[in-house]
Amino acid sequence: MKSITSRDNPLYKRLKALAGSTAQQRRSGHALLEGLHLADAYLDAAGQPETCVVTEGALQHDEARQIVGRIDPAHVYTLPDALFGQLSSVVHGVGMVLLVEKVAAPLPERITQTCMMLDGIQDAGNVGSILRSAAAAGIQHVFCAPGTVYAWSSKVLRAGMGAHFLLGIHEDVEPAELMSRLAPEVLVTITDSHGAKAIYDADLSGPVAWVMGNEGAGVSPFWRDHATLRVTIPQPGGMESLNVAAAAAVCIFEQCRQQRV
Amino acid sequence: MKSITSRDNPLYKRLKALAGSTAQQRRSGHALLEGLHLADAYLDAAGQPETCVVTEGALQHDEARQIVGRIDPAHVYTLPDALFGQLSSVVHGVGMVLLVEKVAAPLPERITQTCMMLDGIQDAGNVGSILRSAAAAGIQHVFCAPGTVYAWSSKVLRAGMGAHFLLGIHEDVEPAELMSRLAPEVLVTITDSHGAKAIYDADLSGPVAWVMGNEGAGVSPFWRDHATLRVTIPQPGGMESLNVAAAAAVCIFEQCRQQRV
Repeated sequence: MKSITSRDNPLYKRLKALAGSTAQQRRSGHALLEGLHLADAYLDAAGQPETCVVTEGALQHDEARQIVGRIDPAHVYTLPDALFGQLSSVVHGVGMVLLVEKVAAPLPERITQTCMMLDGIQDAGNVGSILRSAAAAGIQHVFCAPGTVYAWSSKVLRAGMGAHFLLGIHEDVEPAELMSRLAPEVLVTITDSHGAKAIYDADLSGPVAWVMGNEGAGVSPFWRDHATLRVTIPQPGGMESLNVAAAAAVCIFEQCRQQRV
Repeated sequence: MKSITSRDNPLYKRLKALAGSTAQQRRSGHALLEGLHLADAYLDAAGQPETCVVTEGALQHDEARQIVGRIDPAHVYTLPDALFGQLSSVVHGVGMVLLVEKVAAPLPERITQTCMMLDGIQDAGNVGSILRSAAAAGIQHVFCAPGTVYAWSSKVLRAGMGAHFLLGIHEDVEPAELMSRLAPEVLVTITDSHGAKAIYDADLSGPVAWVMGNEGAGVSPFWRDHATLRVTIPQPGGMESLNVAAAAAVCIFEQCRQQRV
């Protein structure tokens, strides 16, 4: 283990710059994992981080020490609690951040299974919730169109609760590129309140590519044109639509219900 | 219409203090509705606001002028765009805020219909999403236990997209008080991953009181003890749980599916 003792330490300055800018995280393809739960999930699923930074205070706690014990000591840095605040977006955090490269799986040659497409979703909490629902349902691939928020930002990671390490998350995937890799038996499915079939009456027993659109504008014209199935979630109340992550959960788990054995 | 021209204007100072503190909004029982959509929904459902503040810039736009036209001019104040920033939590907002008293319906004497209980939910986006799902499903009453975030904060209002004005939202409701008003035919239902019945196999054809617990701690001991039905959402993937608003949506709409005619 090494120590960071000054704000001028180059690693500290690099981490601070990354922590302050999701755009910079995105450019460099890195992510900052905050807290013990995400660190644990990462070590279980993905292996060693590039760097682990832990406060002297956090090292007083068994749980944090246990996680640090799983990491190659050459990549662990301790630092005074006072320096930690600027590395973390969590107000009462535990004092541990892992710096990792985002896990970027290659785009599958051919997509034959149920998958999720995030078509310009802007809210980090929504993306995290959808990733969590997808992982819970056993979906393996999530494709993010350009314009979707960075899936490895601290907020999305926090909301995802470890789902990132169970999924293949593919970012900046052009719709036409994706379409060309979809096997014909995969139904491109959008939710649509106008004259569509109730989701409960749709046959979801085969693979589905679920397209979830932007919070304001909805599904983009490309996927509206290429949808092979349009479903609606019947809403007996008066509201016109659901939150996109709520709608995604209803869709995904209705498919799980239909596919129960 | 009157004008606010100075930061020392007493109304401006009051609005600024409210905008900066959810605790203060909660104490005074007020809410700030930002943007045209919420203003419109409020005017449709609830009537006149206490005060409408609109920027000179916003008044250039037809849609904003139309909304202002629905409000008693005695309660409309214009102000320079430069003063508006501190009243709004929306970065690229439209320049309109309504100050309203929160709509507090009296607690029903006897609860005989499906309802929602927010048992210490902390995230404003989650509460907003659940309110939206509840309103979409035609649920009429939402009860918030002490410890749940203020349902009329700007963030919850924004995420609720107008659901607040279609629901009876009851805050700081003590669980024992609520329990005493529940008709015996209403099933107190919690989600529980341990040995519970799959939600699809549970009979949800009658009224249900859905209890949704805190993001970290889950459902509180009181409702664990008083639950008459425990259901689980089968999750074929590897994750251990869903986001609470996603789980709420799956529960609510599974009940809608079972109750379809």
